[in-house]
Amino acid sequence: MYYQFRNDYSELVSPEILRFIEEIALEQNVGYGLDKHSVEAEKLILEKFGLDNGAVFFMLGGTQVNMVTLSYLLRPYEGVIACDTAHINGHETGAVEGSGHKIYTSKNVDGKITPEDIRRCVRLNHDCHTVKFTTVYISNATESGTIYTKDELLALRKVCDELGLFLFMDGARMGVALTSRKNDVDCKLIGEVCDAFYISGTKNGMLSGEALCFKNKKVAEDFRYQIKNKGGMLAKGFLVSSQFECAFRDDLFFRLAKNSNDQADYIKDSLKGVCEFTNESPTNQIFLRFKKADAEKIMENFGAEPWEDQGEHMVIRLVTSFNTKKEDCDKIIEFIKGL
Amino acid sequence: MYYQFRNDYSELVSPEILRFIEEIALEQNVGYGLDKHSVEAEKLILEKFGLDNGAVFFMLGGTQVNMVTLSYLLRPYEGVIACDTAHINGHETGAVEGSGHKIYTSKNVDGKITPEDIRRCVRLNHDCHTVKFTTVYISNATESGTIYTKDELLALRKVCDELGLFLFMDGARMGVALTSRKNDVDCKLIGEVCDAFYISGTKNGMLSGEALCFKNKKVAEDFRYQIKNKGGMLAKGFLVSSQFECAFRDDLFFRLAKNSNDQADYIKDSLKGVCEFTNESPTNQIFLRFKKADAEKIMENFGAEPWEDQGEHMVIRLVTSFNTKKEDCDKIIEFIKGL
Amino acid sequence: MYYQFRNDYSELVSPEILRFIEEIALEQNVGYGLDKHSVEAEKLILEKFGLDNGAVFFMLGGTQVNMVTLSYLLRPYEGVIACDTAHINGHETGAVEGSGHKIYTSKNVDGKITPEDIRRCVRLNHDCHTVKFTTVYISNATESGTIYTKDELLALRKVCDELGLFLFMDGARMGVALTSRKNDVDCKLIGEVCDAFYISGTKNGMLSGEALCFKNKKVAEDFRYQIKNKGGMLAKGFLVSSQFECAFRDDLFFRLAKNSNDQADYIKDSLKGVCEFTNESPTNQIFLRFKKADAEKIMENFGAEPWEDQGEHMVIRLVTSFNTKKEDCDKIIEFIKGL
Amino acid sequence: MYYQFRNDYSELVSPEILRFIEEIALEQNVGYGLDKHSVEAEKLILEKFGLDNGAVFFMLGGTQVNMVTLSYLLRPYEGVIACDTAHINGHETGAVEGSGHKIYTSKNVDGKITPEDIRRCVRLNHDCHTVKFTTVYISNATESGTIYTKDELLALRKVCDELGLFLFMDGARMGVALTSRKNDVDCKLIGEVCDAFYISGTKNGMLSGEALCFKNKKVAEDFRYQIKNKGGMLAKGFLVSSQFECAFRDDLFFRLAKNSNDQADYIKDSLKGVCEFTNESPTNQIFLRFKKADAEKIMENFGAEPWEDQGEHMVIRLVTSFNTKKEDCDKIIEFIKGL
Repeated sequence: MYYQFRNDYSELVSPEILRFIEEIALEQNVGYGLDKHSVEAEKLILEKFGLDNGAVFFMLGGTQVNMVTLSYLLRPYEGVIACDTAHINGHETGAVEGSGHKIYTSKNVDGKITPEDIRRCVRLNHDCHTVKFTTVYISNATESGTIYTKDELLALRKVCDELGLFLFMDGARMGVALTSRKNDVDCKLIGEVCDAFYISGTKNGMLSGEALCFKNKKVAEDFRYQIKNKGGMLAKGFLVSSQFECAFRDDLFFRLAKNSNDQADYIKDSLKGVCEFTNESPTNQIFLRFKKADAEKIMENFGAEPWEDQGEHMVIRLVTSFNTKKEDCDKIIEFIKGL
Repeated sequence: MYYQFRNDYSELVSPEILRFIEEIALEQNVGYGLDKHSVEAEKLILEKFGLDNGAVFFMLGGTQVNMVTLSYLLRPYEGVIACDTAHINGHETGAVEGSGHKIYTSKNVDGKITPEDIRRCVRLNHDCHTVKFTTVYISNATESGTIYTKDELLALRKVCDELGLFLFMDGARMGVALTSRKNDVDCKLIGEVCDAFYISGTKNGMLSGEALCFKNKKVAEDFRYQIKNKGGMLAKGFLVSSQFECAFRDDLFFRLAKNSNDQADYIKDSLKGVCEFTNESPTNQIFLRFKKADAEKIMENFGAEPWEDQGEHMVIRLVTSFNTKKEDCDKIIEFIKGL
Repeated sequence: MYYQFRNDYSELVSPEILRFIEEIALEQNVGYGLDKHSVEAEKLILEKFGLDNGAVFFMLGGTQVNMVTLSYLLRPYEGVIACDTAHINGHETGAVEGSGHKIYTSKNVDGKITPEDIRRCVRLNHDCHTVKFTTVYISNATESGTIYTKDELLALRKVCDELGLFLFMDGARMGVALTSRKNDVDCKLIGEVCDAFYISGTKNGMLSGEALCFKNKKVAEDFRYQIKNKGGMLAKGFLVSSQFECAFRDDLFFRLAKNSNDQADYIKDSLKGVCEFTNESPTNQIFLRFKKADAEKIMENFGAEPWEDQGEHMVIRLVTSFNTKKEDCDKIIEFIKGL
Repeated sequence: MYYQFRNDYSELVSPEILRFIEEIALEQNVGYGLDKHSVEAEKLILEKFGLDNGAVFFMLGGTQVNMVTLSYLLRPYEGVIACDTAHINGHETGAVEGSGHKIYTSKNVDGKITPEDIRRCVRLNHDCHTVKFTTVYISNATESGTIYTKDELLALRKVCDELGLFLFMDGARMGVALTSRKNDVDCKLIGEVCDAFYISGTKNGMLSGEALCFKNKKVAEDFRYQIKNKGGMLAKGFLVSSQFECAFRDDLFFRLAKNSNDQADYIKDSLKGVCEFTNESPTNQIFLRFKKADAEKIMENFGAEPWEDQGEHMVIRLVTSFNTKKEDCDKIIEFIKGL
């Protein structure tokens, strides 16, 4: 069987992370995120993102982090602004609404929201008959594999400052965003422009786990209560935080993400001119358009996912991971060239 | 430093479970619980508990399982019956109420609820001005370390049948309940009397993870939507299910639990007559009453938790785990005898 | 001061309704909707709408009825399909989402949803990562003043039957819909095609009050609990039901609505060719487009509401009521002609 | 048929209130509580209760006011402290929990909560595993018909100040509390000790309606959004506020309540020594204990409600209203004496 390009969470854990898990397997730690690994991982992340006054919480599951955080930030009659392709809008089974809050969506531009979309949404509210939209949700990398530029992020920060909005970044694929060859954003800028963001380990070689960062720890004062109230508090908090400690003490996190990008770039470069790319994702998701019969062959052999059924044609998605190897890529490249 | 008796989730993972994780670390599996380990683990558990027509879901976190399950079973105006010491009542930061449902509580009898308590609650509702209580929550082992007997469970089932109630068992400490020397309940009986129950790995040597079992898979038809809606769906479902596969294919689950009980029994037997036990927990929680100064020494040295401040005296809790060793027990026994 | 055309809920109550209130002012009735007026009003409404097996509930407030009903019908992971101009989407401050449910919206066609929109929405859901949309929300008259034709309603029923969806009609302006000169739908058809619908008295000469009708009383079995749980249960249920009794025992309800339509028609007929109508509302809402300065004069003098700011132009809305008189209309017609 | 003593909301409306409704029946007012009657009624109430900086909102339904207010004040992980007989605990079908919040209950003392109960509850919370209780709910008059004394209210205020708690008073029967012959509390004291309270018209001669008062209008800044989000915003806000304007411009509110109390006192004084009173309610609820056969006769003839079934005996409740007359009382007194 061929290596599968289905997604970046097919493989349980990278060897380096696993080695650290083994080291601490029988160590005794206090529960609920108050252990030394949580302290150390928080310190490493805050430093990396330049947050002097921040706080980090370790949770498990991106939908959970999004829902728990947004329902903490919002009052019952407040909502969140996102673009239509936002993960919270289309792929979380109504979790944000389930916690009581409306999502306003605008048409995405390459998977992104624009300052003008945000302004338009805020202008809609002039009295108590409409929701107050007080938080902006963005993903980086986006659901389309694209990434925000430095200028775009600064422009979003500006509009948020102007309108008094909270800026939250979903970093389910933060690793590949920050290590993309097209990226001009560094960790410090993320820490500067976002009021809160999370970094996912699930899609980057960890067993699973997310690190949610608040710029201002005062805002997060009661956040532990919120996590517990929503069922997200881990008895073994150190299960997640230890992985982040391992991943951030020597930039393993970025090396793992870089492999995903490198292999994706290799495939993209090799297939240039060979087949049709439906967008210019500079990260580890590749969107290709084929005649349906060809698409089906690729899906069957390489686990690619169907993305959009267009009648005679089909768009499929390939995803590389921390563990994808050049030889795996060669096989799918060859296969596609041979169609 | 001495071995700590703080709780049964201080140590990350048992060597046997870890070995299985290592084996499958780089294996590619499909996401969201549709992988082969989830299928296999479900099969093993259903067999063990005699469920011909059941369904198993793998989640992470006991509070999460309780909240997600109860809010799936209940309509907005329905509630759950429990005793006052129930974990959902006192230690989950209002997660069940947060999902919209009232908990009716009666005074516990040794950590348990009685058929008469259930009847009393149901009688309270005779029109639309009070909540309809349609589900009963019990824990086994209870929060006090006690366990339900076969007769008690059959009596609860009887009253639930009579009144049309759903019986849910929180098995955060199911392992030590089923392997206690006082236990007369087997897995098959659990499967027979409960409409749903969960088995926790978190407190029994797994990295973390819970297996929620429904007796009737028809009832659970939409449960995957519910998990996702509440933020509990794991991308890497196999992180949890593979641990259960490992733990149930040769009864490792019960051997790990038995060690917790054996060590606790050894401590209890050794301290009989030496100090005061506040209840007769036949599982891995031990509740002892000391003069405050002595209690503090034990807590400081062995990580015991304060349970009840009684002025001059203090009740403390010791907990043993899958990894507690006889020599660790000897040290605390000696220490207490020497006070 | 001129008569105000701001909306149809500016005047508290019609003389006929008030007379009935006076008659029963000191009569003693049992509480919570179990009184004789509620029984009688339910009977009259069920007969009118041809519901042999239905149930009627009297509540107060359209947003309340929408939210209480939808959150009764939907499970946590289910949602409702509507068009973008739907009242629940844009003018209820996120009440439906506040009760935990996502609204899927499609672009309206003259304020309406089409069968194809519904199909498109349902096709989006193929696994547990998206919301299950199980209920369709329509308004009649719509928020744009338009009305559904018999053929349109039958087509919606057909698609709902095909896809297993529940069809709910918001009748905040049901009276003017059913008495419009363009209408080809009768009460019996409403009762036939809708699974539930409500009839509003608030915008049709009552003090306030809504009658929610379920086609199948079995579906509504626990609905009284739901009303109370959401804070909508009236101690003096007869306050609302007595008004419906009065309005439905000799078709006063329809006479009041007809006056709204007649006066609106008179204005529309008189202004044909004089100014620009932005849509062809056949009910008591009239949407007119003016140069901004003219619009402002009309708003200032006649309480018309701004509907859409188009830069140099402005769309304004005029609304007639049960109490609007021909001479009031003459004044605004003359005023507009004189601009 | 005899006059019914079932409750104080059996009669729709007092003649004085009705006369005012008639006066304004066809007047045109702006919607959603922004009309002149709402402004005037707010002014009158703020003056009466000595609130220089307060805000008043007019809603309809006590359960609604309780739920909307508490879910506005509380964050998701916060809860409310009450006594076990509190209306929100036992007679609102889980509305507060339905909005996501836990109620902590202590055993009532004559229907009241004590400062020590409040302290005990707050002490239970020392970390994120338990709910933060930040609001205290009391009723005056209580569900048992008793009333708080000046000293009791000042003591509650003191403990709330000390612990940083918000004090909310449910005034479903505020009228009879303030006009009871045993009362030593005036409106100004209510305004001084409570952070928020509501005054009910439903049980005091109005068609229906509640006035919710916040001491500090800054706290209520977004409250109109909250009302709408929870389905409690009235299009015809003036339906409720006009009644309060009428009731407070010349103390009609207190005259209506005084009649309820006077008639109840007359019954109590007349039956002293004749039958057994189960508590000393100084307001319009009278709790009497009879042999079951006698209780049934009274219930059948006078609409008294069963309160507690004690086997051979039964406690029943009689309630007087704004419209109860001395001759009605004479009949029930005579009837009871004749048993």
